[in-house]
Amino acid sequence: MHDNNTRPIMPHTARMLDARWYIDTDIFTQEQVCLFRNRWQFVVHDSELPNRGDYVCFVVDGDDLFAVRGEDGVVRVFHNLCRHRGTRLIDGLRGTLTTASVQCPYHAWTYGLDGRLRAAPGMDKTEGFERTAHGLHSVATDSWDGHVFMHLGTSPKPLLPVLDDLPAKLGAWGMGELVPVHREAYSVAANWKMLIQNYSECLHCPVAHPQLQALSHYLSGENDPPHETYLGGRMDLRPESQSLTTTGAPLAASLPGLSSAQRRIVAYYAVLPNLLLNLHPDYMLTFRLQPRSPGQTDVDCTWYVHPETRDTPGFDPSPAVAFWDLTNRQDWSLCERAQRGVSSSAYQPGPYSNREDLLWAFDQWLLDKVGPAFR
Amino acid sequence: MHDNNTRPIMPHTARMLDARWYIDTDIFTQEQVCLFRNRWQFVVHDSELPNRGDYVCFVVDGDDLFAVRGEDGVVRVFHNLCRHRGTRLIDGLRGTLTTASVQCPYHAWTYGLDGRLRAAPGMDKTEGFERTAHGLHSVATDSWDGHVFMHLGTSPKPLLPVLDDLPAKLGAWGMGELVPVHREAYSVAANWKMLIQNYSECLHCPVAHPQLQALSHYLSGENDPPHETYLGGRMDLRPESQSLTTTGAPLAASLPGLSSAQRRIVAYYAVLPNLLLNLHPDYMLTFRLQPRSPGQTDVDCTWYVHPETRDTPGFDPSPAVAFWDLTNRQDWSLCERAQRGVSSSAYQPGPYSNREDLLWAFDQWLLDKVGPAFR
Amino acid sequence: MHDNNTRPIMPHTARMLDARWYIDTDIFTQEQVCLFRNRWQFVVHDSELPNRGDYVCFVVDGDDLFAVRGEDGVVRVFHNLCRHRGTRLIDGLRGTLTTASVQCPYHAWTYGLDGRLRAAPGMDKTEGFERTAHGLHSVATDSWDGHVFMHLGTSPKPLLPVLDDLPAKLGAWGMGELVPVHREAYSVAANWKMLIQNYSECLHCPVAHPQLQALSHYLSGENDPPHETYLGGRMDLRPESQSLTTTGAPLAASLPGLSSAQRRIVAYYAVLPNLLLNLHPDYMLTFRLQPRSPGQTDVDCTWYVHPETRDTPGFDPSPAVAFWDLTNRQDWSLCERAQRGVSSSAYQPGPYSNREDLLWAFDQWLLDKVGPAFR
Repeated sequence: MHDNNTRPIMPHTARMLDARWYIDTDIFTQEQVCLFRNRWQFVVHDSELPNRGDYVCFVVDGDDLFAVRGEDGVVRVFHNLCRHRGTRLIDGLRGTLTTASVQCPYHAWTYGLDGRLRAAPGMDKTEGFERTAHGLHSVATDSWDGHVFMHLGTSPKPLLPVLDDLPAKLGAWGMGELVPVHREAYSVAANWKMLIQNYSECLHCPVAHPQLQALSHYLSGENDPPHETYLGGRMDLRPESQSLTTTGAPLAASLPGLSSAQRRIVAYYAVLPNLLLNLHPDYMLTFRLQPRSPGQTDVDCTWYVHPETRDTPGFDPSPAVAFWDLTNRQDWSLCERAQRGVSSSAYQPGPYSNREDLLWAFDQWLLDKVGPAFR
Repeated sequence: MHDNNTRPIMPHTARMLDARWYIDTDIFTQEQVCLFRNRWQFVVHDSELPNRGDYVCFVVDGDDLFAVRGEDGVVRVFHNLCRHRGTRLIDGLRGTLTTASVQCPYHAWTYGLDGRLRAAPGMDKTEGFERTAHGLHSVATDSWDGHVFMHLGTSPKPLLPVLDDLPAKLGAWGMGELVPVHREAYSVAANWKMLIQNYSECLHCPVAHPQLQALSHYLSGENDPPHETYLGGRMDLRPESQSLTTTGAPLAASLPGLSSAQRRIVAYYAVLPNLLLNLHPDYMLTFRLQPRSPGQTDVDCTWYVHPETRDTPGFDPSPAVAFWDLTNRQDWSLCERAQRGVSSSAYQPGPYSNREDLLWAFDQWLLDKVGPAFR
Repeated sequence: MHDNNTRPIMPHTARMLDARWYIDTDIFTQEQVCLFRNRWQFVVHDSELPNRGDYVCFVVDGDDLFAVRGEDGVVRVFHNLCRHRGTRLIDGLRGTLTTASVQCPYHAWTYGLDGRLRAAPGMDKTEGFERTAHGLHSVATDSWDGHVFMHLGTSPKPLLPVLDDLPAKLGAWGMGELVPVHREAYSVAANWKMLIQNYSECLHCPVAHPQLQALSHYLSGENDPPHETYLGGRMDLRPESQSLTTTGAPLAASLPGLSSAQRRIVAYYAVLPNLLLNLHPDYMLTFRLQPRSPGQTDVDCTWYVHPETRDTPGFDPSPAVAFWDLTNRQDWSLCERAQRGVSSSAYQPGPYSNREDLLWAFDQWLLDKVGPAFR
């Protein structure tokens, strides 16, 4: 089964990117502008903020931001700084604003969860001061089946048309209904593109992931044709496996909307630039990539299940958590080794195999979006 | 009492500085030249070096220096490096040179406490070598009521005329006679100007310093008109408070020279660029600011009392130490939050209130001294 | 005895280098090119890799490399990265490749110990892929009496002619037969040239090394005339000393080939740019310098004895190890102090004494090789 290498022959011109794409700070800065600030990027899943006032903080390209669920139930994203003297408003990673407001700890300027400035003590004797002109700096948001994205540019087009046919492809998993049951944060000493490239091929699986290879043959499955916004496809579970867990047994019954064929695969998609999505028959895993420097990337990894699964007495996500935590660490180590190597003066771009077709597509996408300034 | 906001209306054009003043390394370098190397800056209080040979080491703008009391009783400042091969001479923070000399640990070149080269073993066969030409690099010093300042430029004008009327204003506290009883060193992840701005208004006191607000109302007191060399004024103690301590009770009797009015206030002055001075009825607190980078500032904080107070059996400075250590940490946290915020791409200078008049004056001073090169 | 300062008078123009030679990153980069990448540099002693498959990893100018003994007994040096996607192949400091091959942990490309690509799984469907074109990047090597050197440039001339008369001078010690008995790794916060300058004079010995001074008078011995490739000479042991150890007693009988005169000296040579060589009557000490940045240098220090000494029951190298470990730490501290001082804006190059003749020669060598671009 699944063990024929049926993909087209790779042309001899298909090679890795030059080293500078992984180490140059000017290129990194340009990527942040072209690929992150001026595109929709994934922020948080809707179910991470179940109640009004729930917030999560994050740092993107050096900027402090937070997402918060408003009193009207809407999740919004704001820059995490006061309009008075620039003070960071909220600390920590996540929490709940029980007062339904954000108060600056410096001079008590107070904002609503909708970003409006409600109070600015001591500003009554400043000529022409208007509260309405000093709300929080807000960021455009849009969402897809539970995944909240933000756009740091001005007047972005809606998210869904950009995703094209992906929502239809993945609708059966009902991602918007799933709820988080575990999180891991990683910091990887490698360029963010190393992680996407690592994610986009399984030729390394027999060598690096014997546990994964035992559950899904690395030549199984198929990739979708590369798309402007996403790269991915499916792996097939081996007959004796029902999911990717430490035992191959599932965490729970399959997600309710899946066809029998969908219950035998793992769908994996890199939604560019920063969301990696693994859909198993019984659970979802998301990776949020956050580039920190040319050689450093943070990864927030979250495991989700159906709320009925979560609420089942005795439910234990650890077989899925342990499986992917091990696999992740194996991958981060390889990414870090590759980052070391491409930083060497001896590095020359090597040839791609026909199993690395998505990497080549990703490289072309990158060169197309960012390359013109650096050719 | 004290609770009327009587200061003039703030014009609508009064806003924070642009972000670059807090994060740009070129501006930081220029500030070091214009505001530190070419002005008098505070180094050490005379009573910190009571005996001949007592020294203290410090680092200013990357240069190692030390202040030492000579055999003639004069405190001098020298660059901390040997004239032979550049070796740093003295280690550690403070101590006493018991031999009344400084010997280089590399080749035993030996200098007097006046900086003169006394011995240079092995140099007798170097053509034309003259000991008199190889004394320590010395730095100009001058002092004001116990505060020793240095000037890294050439041929500076005397210190006292620069301070104008400040010595007369503060003469009653007898600062030159006071002696240190405690020190704390802090390292703050914020631009040095954030600390001066934080120091120069008490609008944040009700929010950030409930302990301080309980002893002195934030609207009490008055600022002096902004001066070329200093910014400050007074806070009034509440009727039930006698000093700024954890209990409001004084550490000791008031300093001998104070008027009854002076016994009811706390005087606070930022002596530009790097000395912050808090004068209480019974003790003095000094802050020496040392910028390390655009986003990092070291602070040396010292508590002083009258020598008779120090020598009183059972004397305990901890109510004053604990009060200010807490207040300092509250302030450093705010400075660090503001530094984070102004580093954001979303930061825009916000409007000042009429209680932030000294900040605005400080900003104008800065723009006047350093701004021309960066407009 | 030995206590006359008989070296020629030093001209008054002989002074230390300007500060930039110790702190400027452009100069540092140029040094790496001119003095390291385009010269023979010391890598490892032959006896460090006794068996086939033994390897040692090292980092030179940011590049990962490894030396390995091949199945044919030859020690080769390779860049430590896979020709496929650049992955670092070997981890850790040293070990043995028991399979007589190097396998990449990412996609299992496998290389022989001679660098040839033996297997590249999954590359059969890449158009025109040839294994012979994808061997490891190899580096030229050559060796001198057990010391293996490498040359990162293209088509280097052989090593031995470059060393000129040094092999003949030091032949009696039989360095190629010696075996390692101890290693220490140091990281010194100083420019690499500070270490060579420290190594090249003993004027500092009475002040800094009382233990050494007790075994060998600092005015004893003689330097060879400075040479294009090496700087050094000899120190004489005091009559009551037989080697440089904590007690002055030798570790073992003298090395077999030494004359009676050679048994009374310690030969010391800086083989430029990165090997320091101390030859005692009974043991050898080598220092391998690895510049990391203008202000940071790694040092690998290894103690060697005759194999019969090593194999003698009860043999204990610790009197030699402890002696030099102490002396090294004394020296690194001085180097770090000098680095601090020359980084000061107050630093001016000081005058050399006539005991610092080798330093002056070294400076001239440096200015000759690297200086033209920076005058």
